[in-house]
Amino acid sequence: MTTAHPALDGLTTPALLLDEARMIRNIDRLAAQAQTLGVTLRPHLKTAKSTEIARRLGGPITVSTLAEAEVFHAAGHTDILYAVGIAPRKLPRVQALRAAGCDLTVILDSLAQARAVAEAGVPALIEIDSDGHRGGLVPDDPLLIRIGKLLQDAGLLRGVLTHAGESYGVSGREAHAGFAEMERRATVRAAEALRGAGLTCAVVSTGSTPTAHAARDLSGVTELRAGVYMFFDLVMAGIGVCARDDIALSVLTTVIGHQRSKGWLMIDAGWMAMSRDRGTAAQAVDQGYGLVCDAAGREVPDLIVAGANQEHGIVSLRPGSKAEMPDLPVGTLLRILPNHACATAAQHARYHVIPADGGPMATWPRFGGW
Amino acid sequence: MTTAHPALDGLTTPALLLDEARMIRNIDRLAAQAQTLGVTLRPHLKTAKSTEIARRLGGPITVSTLAEAEVFHAAGHTDILYAVGIAPRKLPRVQALRAAGCDLTVILDSLAQARAVAEAGVPALIEIDSDGHRGGLVPDDPLLIRIGKLLQDAGLLRGVLTHAGESYGVSGREAHAGFAEMERRATVRAAEALRGAGLTCAVVSTGSTPTAHAARDLSGVTELRAGVYMFFDLVMAGIGVCARDDIALSVLTTVIGHQRSKGWLMIDAGWMAMSRDRGTAAQAVDQGYGLVCDAAGREVPDLIVAGANQEHGIVSLRPGSKAEMPDLPVGTLLRILPNHACATAAQHARYHVIPADGGPMATWPRFGGW
Repeated sequence: MTTAHPALDGLTTPALLLDEARMIRNIDRLAAQAQTLGVTLRPHLKTAKSTEIARRLGGPITVSTLAEAEVFHAAGHTDILYAVGIAPRKLPRVQALRAAGCDLTVILDSLAQARAVAEAGVPALIEIDSDGHRGGLVPDDPLLIRIGKLLQDAGLLRGVLTHAGESYGVSGREAHAGFAEMERRATVRAAEALRGAGLTCAVVSTGSTPTAHAARDLSGVTELRAGVYMFFDLVMAGIGVCARDDIALSVLTTVIGHQRSKGWLMIDAGWMAMSRDRGTAAQAVDQGYGLVCDAAGREVPDLIVAGANQEHGIVSLRPGSKAEMPDLPVGTLLRILPNHACATAAQHARYHVIPADGGPMATWPRFGGW
Repeated sequence: MTTAHPALDGLTTPALLLDEARMIRNIDRLAAQAQTLGVTLRPHLKTAKSTEIARRLGGPITVSTLAEAEVFHAAGHTDILYAVGIAPRKLPRVQALRAAGCDLTVILDSLAQARAVAEAGVPALIEIDSDGHRGGLVPDDPLLIRIGKLLQDAGLLRGVLTHAGESYGVSGREAHAGFAEMERRATVRAAEALRGAGLTCAVVSTGSTPTAHAARDLSGVTELRAGVYMFFDLVMAGIGVCARDDIALSVLTTVIGHQRSKGWLMIDAGWMAMSRDRGTAAQAVDQGYGLVCDAAGREVPDLIVAGANQEHGIVSLRPGSKAEMPDLPVGTLLRILPNHACATAAQHARYHVIPADGGPMATWPRFGGW
């Protein structure tokens, strides 16, 4: 749309805006990609944290907290993967969800965790390290078989999982396809090691937003995970996973002042509204705390949120820009595209939704906590 | 205390912990300082966002959002300063609070804002720029008198205010005292300019946590503002405003895994629990995403949260450390001291309070939003 939705004027700023048409386009794009690759898509809801959005996805889901598992199960989702290494103290909540009919699976990479889940009767995937990013076992770690046996003896071995978080640090489809192949190779090798030891490995789960979009061949993989792709953000645009025009999330803000001699304008979106995430700082183009658009979502050339205090954003032209500082009086509404949708969305309790059908705006609650 | 509160074991991690004894010590310390200096303390509740904490302060308060003004007014606070430049579109909410008996004052630095508040009948302070940090007029800006006249004609001129945000970037009492004097000089000069033009200037309001603690003489100043001092954090310790032992806020977390070959351990406090704030990155000692303590709050030498994903923290020894990596098995509880208390607290919906009297833990809700 090239004009601002008339209801924007009635919102309290700062406010989190969600462009439903863009979100649906993003969701459909990865669903088609998963179908082409012949894998099940298991979207990660750590970014969205909204039952309204989960409802538009259907099927199996991934979560990052047990609070998400509880909320989404209460909303009717039954096939849920909790994709953060399980702390034994959290197993009673997992057991309660399973007893209530939720097929909740956990992940782990140690004998201590495997013993605890075996005792609790909770099915698990073994986390595989495909890129040195954080947790997981390398595929040839002898511990893999020991953990696999322990789980299988308890009837709880579901398979293996990896996440190539390092794919965020490289740019372009070729590079991301390389990480997708690393994810595939590491998990398939681990699955084969387990099978070679007489164990079952039904699930081979891979994915991150960059690798999911770039993967060309996922032979041996059964499911694909991604989260931020629903909204996209400047970090994803900066590494070429999406275009800036695909970004479905922005923060509506009001101009509250100027320091004209410095070329600054002040807005009421500081880091409380944008988050402290500076994910583009290490990219080719540093977007500060976000890229400035007008209320209709059109980019204002070279204008970024260069600094942020708690409730103040300082907007200025990108260093070296030859653009002219536009005249934006006190009271002007602007929209800021975020560096990192997961972090920015987490600062807000609700989405103000610009609906795909052009109708009145909706409000979708989102939740947080653990 | 040197042993962990027994109730910590029952908390879901990550969880925000507040040490009430330390908080009270911090609150009392600045109250005594304000009394010595002969000024009214107007604590800023942008960090705490808790009616339980506000209740322990009493007196006038400062807020950073109208949501804070509404919540604290409903809790019985009547003298409130909203210390972010007023957007004209927000005036109806300000008027509603004033009509309900709240003496709510706003701040501004432009004629457009002054005309809007004059029309709305809302009293205001004029923001003064004392250090080039963000908004405000320099004291000799001719606009000061024009805005002052406009407000005075409407019976709404309350005074002047400044905040030396740049004081966070310097270290040590001498440097902070210098900024305190800059705040004092700029606001007193602005007040004198207004009075010289026949206008009244009852309120001369200054402060930031570093300058409030370091100020030696506030002649001409009537009130002092500070916020993060109630909790303190690693940024404040890093510039010498407090000792690390004064930090009242921490995040309780559980060890969920290891990458022993890399000297890493994984915890369930990632940036969602700690925030993305890296405020110590530019300081002499970079604390990563936080400094690791045991469950009783004793520092583990040189152990920091070196990296953070959404729900994972990666803990390792500080680069160059000669300390030995301690053995912290899966399930171990740790406490992480935050870089920036305002940002970390904002990631949580409640404080789990370790009470000053050694009794059972309490839960104090906190709120967010605008």
